[in-house]
Amino acid sequence: MRALVFEDGGLRVEEHRPEPEPSEGETLVKVRLAGICNTDLEIARGYMAYQGVPGHEFVGEAHGRRVVGEINAACGGCWFCREGLDRHCPNRSVLGILGRSGTFAEYLTLPDRNLHSLPDTLEDEVAVFVEPTAAAFEILEQVSLEAEHRVALLGDGKLALLIAQVLNPRCRLTVFGKHDQKLRLLRDTHTSTDTPTGQFDVVVEASGSERGFQQALELVRPRGTLVLKSTVAESAQLNLAPLVVNEISVVGSRCGPFEPAIAALASGEVDPRPMISARRGLSEAPAAFEQAQAPGVLKVLLDPAS
Amino acid sequence: MRALVFEDGGLRVEEHRPEPEPSEGETLVKVRLAGICNTDLEIARGYMAYQGVPGHEFVGEAHGRRVVGEINAACGGCWFCREGLDRHCPNRSVLGILGRSGTFAEYLTLPDRNLHSLPDTLEDEVAVFVEPTAAAFEILEQVSLEAEHRVALLGDGKLALLIAQVLNPRCRLTVFGKHDQKLRLLRDTHTSTDTPTGQFDVVVEASGSERGFQQALELVRPRGTLVLKSTVAESAQLNLAPLVVNEISVVGSRCGPFEPAIAALASGEVDPRPMISARRGLSEAPAAFEQAQAPGVLKVLLDPAS
Repeated sequence: MRALVFEDGGLRVEEHRPEPEPSEGETLVKVRLAGICNTDLEIARGYMAYQGVPGHEFVGEAHGRRVVGEINAACGGCWFCREGLDRHCPNRSVLGILGRSGTFAEYLTLPDRNLHSLPDTLEDEVAVFVEPTAAAFEILEQVSLEAEHRVALLGDGKLALLIAQVLNPRCRLTVFGKHDQKLRLLRDTHTSTDTPTGQFDVVVEASGSERGFQQALELVRPRGTLVLKSTVAESAQLNLAPLVVNEISVVGSRCGPFEPAIAALASGEVDPRPMISARRGLSEAPAAFEQAQAPGVLKVLLDPAS
Repeated sequence: MRALVFEDGGLRVEEHRPEPEPSEGETLVKVRLAGICNTDLEIARGYMAYQGVPGHEFVGEAHGRRVVGEINAACGGCWFCREGLDRHCPNRSVLGILGRSGTFAEYLTLPDRNLHSLPDTLEDEVAVFVEPTAAAFEILEQVSLEAEHRVALLGDGKLALLIAQVLNPRCRLTVFGKHDQKLRLLRDTHTSTDTPTGQFDVVVEASGSERGFQQALELVRPRGTLVLKSTVAESAQLNLAPLVVNEISVVGSRCGPFEPAIAALASGEVDPRPMISARRGLSEAPAAFEQAQAPGVLKVLLDPAS
C-alpha cells in the first residue's frame, strides 16, 4: 500500500509498504481521509521517538460501514482497563504515535471495540475531525463547567478552535489568540488578540506555546482550574508558587469520548469546515506537512486515494 | 513590646516596638508561644517582600481564654468571602506574611472571627502546631482520599511530618525522606530513604525542594492526583508533557481548617511533641532562626516572655 513513513529523522512516501495485519479482535480499516495534527508535526521533529507511519485522525471504511476510531489500543486486562481508564492502559499502543502504524496510509488496523460507525449525514471532511473534537469534549469530563463560569481559552490553533466551539455554548468564554484571521472563524464567540488579562474561573491552555502555562497561571482565580491541553515537548522555566498560594487545580487533558463528538459534528454544533486549509493527496504528504506548519494554515487533510 | 523585626534584609529584636492596634472587629492577643515555620525562613530571605514582625504560628490569650488564630484576615465583603473562600480574599492581610504584624512579638491582632478557643487539655507546646496541622488537613478538603489509595508523601520536614500523621490512618501511605532520624519519629508509618519509585494514586509534594515537583510527576499514576504543598520561591526547569499525557490533576494546597486540627491534636491522633527541637526566648530570636535552618533541626519555638 501507499504510506507516509517517518524514519531516521525524515519523512518519505512508500508505494509498496506492507499492509498492517489485524491481530485477533482487530479490524483492517481502509482510510478514506486523514488529518494532520500538531502532534504529527511534533513527531516529525522526534517527539515520542516514533518510527513508522504517523497520523491518528481519520475516517475510514470497515465491514461496509464508514467508521472513525479511538486511537488508544488498550490491553483490556490491566487495572486501568478494569477501572474504565483504558486510554491510560500502560500496555497500550497508540495509532501513529506509539507502536501502531497510523492513518497516513491506505490501510490501518484497530481493535473492533475502538471503532464507531458514522451517521450517513456526516460527510468525510467533517468526520475526520471526530478525534480532535473528542479531545475538546474531554474537558467537559474533567471540569464541571457551569453557565456562569468565566472561562479563558488561550490559543487559536486547530485544537483551540474546536475547543472554543465546544465550550462557547456552555459558559462565558473568551478566546485569546494572536491571529485575527483565525479568531474570525469563531462566530458568536467573544475573542481577543490583546494580551490576556482578567480573573477566570477556568483557563484552558491550548496555545501550544512554552509561555502558555505561566500565562494561564496568571489568569486563573484563586481556587480556579487550569486545563492543560498543549503537550509542549520542551521543558520551560516555571514558578509554581502561585499555584500553591492560590490553591489552583491543574488538570492535564488528552484524548476524549467519541460519542458526544460525533453527535456535535453531526448536528452542526461544532463546524470544522472553515478550518480546512487544504486537501492533498497522500503522495504529496511531505509537502503537506510543510504546508501544515506555515503561518495562517489550519487543518491540512490527506487523501490516500490520490 | 518586645518583637522580632525583619527590615532592610536583616532580623533584629526591638524592645520597645509599639503594640499593634486592633481595628473594629479585631482583638488584641497576648502571645504565649510561637513557632518558626519554613515560610518564616523564606521571608527572612526576602519572600513576599514582607517587612515588619514575621511569624504566623502561635498560641495566645484573649478575653481570658487561650486561643489560636487563622492567619488570613479577609475583608468579608468580596466575591471570595461571600463564596466561603475567605482564605483567598484578594483584600486580605496575612499574619506575619502580608500587611499584618506577626507572632514573634508579645502581642498581635486578628479579627475576632479568626480566633478559636482551645480545650484546657491541649497544652501550649502542642497547640502552637494547630496552624501547620490545619495546613495538613487542607489536603483532605481537596482530595477525596480512600482507605485503599496508595499515597506517596515526599519530604520529612516539619510540615511533612504533620501531613504524614494526618494521612497515615486514612490511606496506604509511604513517606519518602532523606533523614532517617526524622522519619523515625513516624511510628507505625511506612517510610523510606531510598529513591522514590512506584505508582501512586496520590502524591503529596512537601519536600520544599526544587526537584520535588518533577519527581512527584514521575510517581503519580495516570489520572492520579499530585498535591503541591511546597512554596518554592525559585523557578525551576519543568517538563509538563507527562502531566498532559497522563492526565494528572495537580492541586495547590495552602492553609486549612482549624477545627479538625484542634481535635486531632487534642486527641493525640497527631502528636507534634517529638518534633520540638528547641524552645528559646524571643530575645534570642535571630539565633533561633539560625538554629531552625541547621541540619536535623525541626521545630524551634519562641517564648515572648523570655
